[in-house]
Amino acid sequence: MQPANSDHLDPARINWPVAEPVLPPNTHPALAEAARAAATAYRAARHQLSRAELAEEIAQGADNTPTMRVDALVEDAIAEAAQRNGVNLLSEEAGFLDHGSAVTLVVDPMDGSANAAAGVPLSCFAGVVTEDGVASEALTVWLDTGRSWWARAGEPAPYRTSGRTSLTGAAVCLLRPKDNSMAAWLRVAARASRVRILSTTCLETALVAEGSVDAFADPGSDTHRIVDLAAAMVTVPAAGGVLLDVHGRPLEFDPDLTRRWSGVAAATPALGDELIATILG
Amino acid sequence: MQPANSDHLDPARINWPVAEPVLPPNTHPALAEAARAAATAYRAARHQLSRAELAEEIAQGADNTPTMRVDALVEDAIAEAAQRNGVNLLSEEAGFLDHGSAVTLVVDPMDGSANAAAGVPLSCFAGVVTEDGVASEALTVWLDTGRSWWARAGEPAPYRTSGRTSLTGAAVCLLRPKDNSMAAWLRVAARASRVRILSTTCLETALVAEGSVDAFADPGSDTHRIVDLAAAMVTVPAAGGVLLDVHGRPLEFDPDLTRRWSGVAAATPALGDELIATILG
Repeated sequence: MQPANSDHLDPARINWPVAEPVLPPNTHPALAEAARAAATAYRAARHQLSRAELAEEIAQGADNTPTMRVDALVEDAIAEAAQRNGVNLLSEEAGFLDHGSAVTLVVDPMDGSANAAAGVPLSCFAGVVTEDGVASEALTVWLDTGRSWWARAGEPAPYRTSGRTSLTGAAVCLLRPKDNSMAAWLRVAARASRVRILSTTCLETALVAEGSVDAFADPGSDTHRIVDLAAAMVTVPAAGGVLLDVHGRPLEFDPDLTRRWSGVAAATPALGDELIATILG
Repeated sequence: MQPANSDHLDPARINWPVAEPVLPPNTHPALAEAARAAATAYRAARHQLSRAELAEEIAQGADNTPTMRVDALVEDAIAEAAQRNGVNLLSEEAGFLDHGSAVTLVVDPMDGSANAAAGVPLSCFAGVVTEDGVASEALTVWLDTGRSWWARAGEPAPYRTSGRTSLTGAAVCLLRPKDNSMAAWLRVAARASRVRILSTTCLETALVAEGSVDAFADPGSDTHRIVDLAAAMVTVPAAGGVLLDVHGRPLEFDPDLTRRWSGVAAATPALGDELIATILG
């Protein structure tokens, strides 16, 4: 589509629409409202603020990384939705917000923050419903299109992974190479038939779940927080795949958001094991 | 959105809609009809065929690379549109189709073929209208969303590049590293603040034009055909940026589609020059 009133665009802003999330009717009401709140807040932010204003680092988050303005605006809207629904929230910037509920939403308010602030149309809301530290359902929403991936823990999803078992010939999404993961990044790139870097873990793991790519990995840079991986912990296994940590650390819903993992989502256990072996060299 | 009738999905197929392109009213009728034909054909192909069937290599194209079934189906629809409109066509698989016109559409029917066949929602129609070898207008359509970027040669576009002049701190999209471009790829990745690989040159150059990323480059692998760069030759300069070849070769509309370039799209001439110097080492 063309942006609305394309004769009067402000080129400093992102002039494309944010879609209304289309969610399965059985989505947990608090999770659904959080997703809709995220989309509404991101839409307003893109409408009102320039790319530079969206990207401005305005605080330090509970995960010990800088908080962009767009992160804060979207998370605030989600926090209000959680409070209205009487559930607790564990979220990237705010940390744990206790509303005295047995239910906690574990949420990445704005996955792919750098994309979201710059206008690269690849960013997501992603979250899970947990009770007593166990996830019961997960939802990922691609904000530019409203496409969503939902799954209930322990039940098969309507989408399936590709079923690929070997890294040779595989299409792999990777976190961008960092100083502490460069050698592993290159080993994976050399073995796979195709690598992509979309800079949005939640969308990339959704693409693994639906079979559009064979795997996604942080090749050992320990960048992931539990909020980055929470939705994939449900959706990828529900589609026949696996979600693992490169170093075998258990993925746990811990209010301490300074903990880090190197997540690997793969179409099959065999592909996950081969990816990890390649990363570890 | 959820796919239609999500209870009855065939997980071997891509179950998301292909959008109807939304085009400016002043788009050249033949170019507009080619874009709509591409979207219609891709929609039908995703509906009827599995990912494996879309990706099957069924011929060798005029560009001397394998033709996937999805490439052929979309190009056939575009060729019919060109014939109906009485214009010539220069296209990736079919080469030059002479309909005795002074006007030739130069088209990449399915940019990001691997994405398009696998279900990674990043693929485009892109084309230009040429007369006597000179492009007069360009159109890029992101097929999953219908978003389009249109420009007339020599006139400013409503979108603008980021204006960034230095590689330090830049967000750069790169073609995936290949054996003959690995060292240059790593040099660019080390200097830029962020690298992405979206595997769709036409969308990545459109993101440069609209200021969502600062630059895009094939770091010297000589992968680009003129059809990959044709639309960006108009849209990027119309937005204030530059489109260059790493080795300074002129970008020419040549019916010989075996010719190759290493395209660089950058927000400013200074950034383009620094990227090329970094790639050449």
